[in-house]
Amino acid sequence: MWSLPPSDSVLHLLAFVALTAQGMTAALAAGRRSMDYVGVCMLGSITALGGGTLRDLFLGHYPLAWVANPIYLVLPGAAALLTILVARLVHRLQFAFIVLDAIGLVVFTMTGCDIAWQMDVSLPIVIVSGMVTGCAGGVLRDVLCNDVPLLFRSELYASVSVVTGLFYATAFGLSINAELWTILTFILGISFRLLAVRYKWEMPKFVFTGDER
Amino acid sequence: MWSLPPSDSVLHLLAFVALTAQGMTAALAAGRRSMDYVGVCMLGSITALGGGTLRDLFLGHYPLAWVANPIYLVLPGAAALLTILVARLVHRLQFAFIVLDAIGLVVFTMTGCDIAWQMDVSLPIVIVSGMVTGCAGGVLRDVLCNDVPLLFRSELYASVSVVTGLFYATAFGLSINAELWTILTFILGISFRLLAVRYKWEMPKFVFTGDER
Amino acid sequence: MWSLPPSDSVLHLLAFVALTAQGMTAALAAGRRSMDYVGVCMLGSITALGGGTLRDLFLGHYPLAWVANPIYLVLPGAAALLTILVARLVHRLQFAFIVLDAIGLVVFTMTGCDIAWQMDVSLPIVIVSGMVTGCAGGVLRDVLCNDVPLLFRSELYASVSVVTGLFYATAFGLSINAELWTILTFILGISFRLLAVRYKWEMPKFVFTGDER
Repeated sequence: MWSLPPSDSVLHLLAFVALTAQGMTAALAAGRRSMDYVGVCMLGSITALGGGTLRDLFLGHYPLAWVANPIYLVLPGAAALLTILVARLVHRLQFAFIVLDAIGLVVFTMTGCDIAWQMDVSLPIVIVSGMVTGCAGGVLRDVLCNDVPLLFRSELYASVSVVTGLFYATAFGLSINAELWTILTFILGISFRLLAVRYKWEMPKFVFTGDER
Repeated sequence: MWSLPPSDSVLHLLAFVALTAQGMTAALAAGRRSMDYVGVCMLGSITALGGGTLRDLFLGHYPLAWVANPIYLVLPGAAALLTILVARLVHRLQFAFIVLDAIGLVVFTMTGCDIAWQMDVSLPIVIVSGMVTGCAGGVLRDVLCNDVPLLFRSELYASVSVVTGLFYATAFGLSINAELWTILTFILGISFRLLAVRYKWEMPKFVFTGDER
Repeated sequence: MWSLPPSDSVLHLLAFVALTAQGMTAALAAGRRSMDYVGVCMLGSITALGGGTLRDLFLGHYPLAWVANPIYLVLPGAAALLTILVARLVHRLQFAFIVLDAIGLVVFTMTGCDIAWQMDVSLPIVIVSGMVTGCAGGVLRDVLCNDVPLLFRSELYASVSVVTGLFYATAFGLSINAELWTILTFILGISFRLLAVRYKWEMPKFVFTGDER
């Protein structure tokens, strides 16, 4: 069997950044729907933890991260509440939000791959686990805000997650220094995402206007 | 370890009232969307059992309540169908519906806390378990009806659940008579909810009108 | 205990047809929402596998089918992408789509009953398991497309699933040839569904126009 990456303390720290980031972006979505403070807080936590929760349910990986460590629940909720205070500055902070969101996507993808790997599943499932962890929280957020998920119709997002996961997962089989590989994957993922946002890279769309059933 | 509350037969009986209540309120939501009779029945069951099902999945608490006791599935579905018959009287029954809904919220919160407690999780997760059990069914109902969940933008509902859960959970550590505490919590929760509805207590809302992404 | 049906190779083959069929119908729904190619692919997989995944979560049946066999993930996704190419012909293929969709419904219902049966649950849960497997994917599809699920307001669909499941499950107790019973159930289910579509059989609807809360 290939060697496991060590539990990376850098990745652990970045996960806190990612939780905060996803809580904050969720708060903006909640504000667009005029949710109350409790709703903002809950949507923050659901968005930040939804992907990891679904992954754990799919893999049967108990206990769930936030059940074992309730701090994971509190952090994005608190970040979401804090966002209410800085909402007026959001226009100026737009770039910061995009970077934070990219960090969330890439770090969650990597942790999702890690956990699937530890469950000893096949490579495609490792990649899917990364994608679910990175992307599903945003889908839940959009469904709860009554939108068609951005994930399915907008910039490269799931694709960034898949590429990041593939790059990261190949390292599992190589005897490369794990910390180095983690950092390389992180830089690749963030760059890919930011370039996709900057240059508006998009997948072609499928537009079908057949008869409604 | 603190002592467990005995499986309370009063609470068990109230759970049937709660299942019926949630099935009935779901039926009205289904009727607003012109669902057919099967849809009404299914939405009733999903609303009544959704919260407990999510809690059981999160905690890894198998078998699910309704898998072990299919009567839990049938009861809210039947109550939903029955509601079709009395829909014309709903205007007069409005207060009854509000009380029934409050019973559902409070009783489900208490059973959610009970079950989490038996799983030996930390206090914050006991509270969250109560909140998920009490509130998540309504979120599912609203998502399936294509609404932004009421829970996130309306009267005190999640807050009632959290306060009820906190009050109830503190009893676990005390050597108070369990039945007495159950009844006290029930009265507190119902009163809080009914007062919140009566006086339209609301959380402040976060309204954000920044650029759509 | 009643005897188990042998793992039916015909049913296994039909499951591939069903996965493909559900991926294809999901693609059309995705196209109506102008999703991009990745979204089409993901919606295809979610629709085709969502029902079985929910069933496995409810029953605690691990590993999930698509975790054990990633081909189940790839097939409906690929079928969804392929549908983009043939979308212009869909008008002519309408009947083919209806038949494929009926096959998906009936076959998934039967596999859902099989798996629940192997988990040794009660008869009502066997039927519910068939219904969840057959119908829940379409509900997820409609929620992700921001529609009120067709399942709750349209032609006989859940009802076909329940009747198919009841017919199929009764065979478990009889000493009838298993392959024969599988084929009989398949024909019954498909016929019932196609007749329901052809003659627009519908459940009565519950229309409620009371005060919005």
